[in-house]
Amino acid sequence: MVFTYAELFDFTKSILLNIGCPEKDAALAADVLLSADLRGVDSHGVARLSGYVRLWEKERINATPNIKIVHETPSTAVVDGDGGLGLVVAPFAMQVAIDKAKIAGTGWVSVKHSNHYGIAGYHAMMALEHDMIGISLTNASPLVSPTFSKERLLGTNPIAVAIPAKSQPAFVADMATTTAANGKLEILQRKEMDAPLGWVQDKDGNQTTDSNGVKKGGALLPLGGDREHGSHKGYALGAIVDIFSAVLSGANYGPWVPPFVAFLEPDPNPVGEGLGHFFGAMRVDAFRPADDFKSHMDNWIGRFRQAKPTEGNEKVLIPGDPERELEAERRISGIPLLKPVVDDLRSLGERFGVKL
Amino acid sequence: MVFTYAELFDFTKSILLNIGCPEKDAALAADVLLSADLRGVDSHGVARLSGYVRLWEKERINATPNIKIVHETPSTAVVDGDGGLGLVVAPFAMQVAIDKAKIAGTGWVSVKHSNHYGIAGYHAMMALEHDMIGISLTNASPLVSPTFSKERLLGTNPIAVAIPAKSQPAFVADMATTTAANGKLEILQRKEMDAPLGWVQDKDGNQTTDSNGVKKGGALLPLGGDREHGSHKGYALGAIVDIFSAVLSGANYGPWVPPFVAFLEPDPNPVGEGLGHFFGAMRVDAFRPADDFKSHMDNWIGRFRQAKPTEGNEKVLIPGDPERELEAERRISGIPLLKPVVDDLRSLGERFGVKL
Repeated sequence: MVFTYAELFDFTKSILLNIGCPEKDAALAADVLLSADLRGVDSHGVARLSGYVRLWEKERINATPNIKIVHETPSTAVVDGDGGLGLVVAPFAMQVAIDKAKIAGTGWVSVKHSNHYGIAGYHAMMALEHDMIGISLTNASPLVSPTFSKERLLGTNPIAVAIPAKSQPAFVADMATTTAANGKLEILQRKEMDAPLGWVQDKDGNQTTDSNGVKKGGALLPLGGDREHGSHKGYALGAIVDIFSAVLSGANYGPWVPPFVAFLEPDPNPVGEGLGHFFGAMRVDAFRPADDFKSHMDNWIGRFRQAKPTEGNEKVLIPGDPERELEAERRISGIPLLKPVVDDLRSLGERFGVKL
Repeated sequence: MVFTYAELFDFTKSILLNIGCPEKDAALAADVLLSADLRGVDSHGVARLSGYVRLWEKERINATPNIKIVHETPSTAVVDGDGGLGLVVAPFAMQVAIDKAKIAGTGWVSVKHSNHYGIAGYHAMMALEHDMIGISLTNASPLVSPTFSKERLLGTNPIAVAIPAKSQPAFVADMATTTAANGKLEILQRKEMDAPLGWVQDKDGNQTTDSNGVKKGGALLPLGGDREHGSHKGYALGAIVDIFSAVLSGANYGPWVPPFVAFLEPDPNPVGEGLGHFFGAMRVDAFRPADDFKSHMDNWIGRFRQAKPTEGNEKVLIPGDPERELEAERRISGIPLLKPVVDDLRSLGERFGVKL
């Protein structure tokens, strides 16, 4: 079943207005959420809308937050999200980073008391139109075990970096710090297919091909998979994201990060407030003239595009290529949704008298 | 054969004085170089000294550089290394980042016209005594193929992040963005052992266990190993390091990065000057009181140390643990060097009349 962006945008915005979000926030949150569907990160898009609503019902999301800066220096700030939708808190905080960068050259913002913020890439890409490099990190509910452990202590903690170019489209990396994002696993679960080794471990910490392994008490594996293949590096990257997002800001970190699913209660003894994000913006002309930088980015991208491919592979991709191509396609031909997702959205709509 | 730190320091410093380095630079460079040997990154330590000397002979290293800031904003700078030893240029640039952070909250420095800078972690750790988070990145000679390519376009481009704690030792991640660092491969080559799959590809881009595969026209693989295991993420991380280090500063990037070995000539049509680094320093009290931050870092580290280990593994490690433990040991019992390394150093010493 395929819907236009406009149909899903209007629907999402209406639902968010119904739970009490101000007009501007509802529109922004809908745009952030749907950017995931446009870019092919279907697990982080409109499929999650009812999850956000359930968190609001449990009073774990504040529809009318007073988002504010609680500490700052010329190039840094801490933002308190006041329990708001991460979809709204994150663009606010990224804008603070951009504003700081205009004056100080760079801006760096750590955020506490927020919720899940959609895809990391959206916020990083806000920097591009200002000729800035954008960085976006977030921690998330614990699903990942550190190397050598059978406990889940980290989220999939993504790293997104967006870098402007001149004639070439921007370089946009947006990646979980695990071998595979949880959304990739959900696709295999739906198809009742096995996962490759290196993605998941079982409850005892042994690698498994069971794509339901995480649900059975196992964990996602850090990028690398096992120690021999560098999982200690994926673990370190996930840890850095956690610390920048939450220890710097005063949010919950590690196993204390509140779960996204409403049926699991947050830890009764939190170490901070909500979950945390971290944003960076760097003016490229704080280093060299923007035109020089962007011309060399064109050259960088052009050279990598021309890299000799291995047999059976057509070409080398630049980070962001697949998502950009999918977005161009889906803006025209629409966004396909699975039947269970549509059913879920329609039953949500009925409750609020909103049609899809 | 085991040497004390003092013996190797005096030897290294004497050699560097002999090639014309000023007293202070020779001492600093010796300290940076030997920190690799102390921390167990033997491939980046004193074993490379004769390599640096050969580059100096070829006039590709300037022993008396005029290292200077060529562009700056309150939180950023570009440093021109004037062809100096990276071992000297990098601490200069990291100090600029720290000085910027004292005033602006954070400092970010991109460096051009430099050379190899030893271990990334040394420079990141300079931030710790100032209650700052330190970041250190560098590009390097191309040995790594992007996902889907058989061409070598990236270096092992490491990422180091050092984060202060209170009672716990600092969190210090220092990692190549490949599955395995080249030094790990060199160890296997010496022992005539195979490498695990996922480390190396052959000249046609097929995975190989041949630990000499890179020398035979193959390449190191980005962290992840192959597409199914997330090598596109390792490739993106290596690319980000390359762009921050060289496209921001005006150094050479990608396949244009000059080789470390003197017998290979740099590209006759460079796209920038020398190789590039990138440094960051963030004052933790630019976000929240330093004592709060460091107490929560202790809690973070303590919780991860207590994570339930999988069978056969004693405990979960914190990034930096193995290197710190080895350094404590080697400061007391000395630094072991392989015979070929000692022979190489002694023949270097004979040339300059310096004894080891």
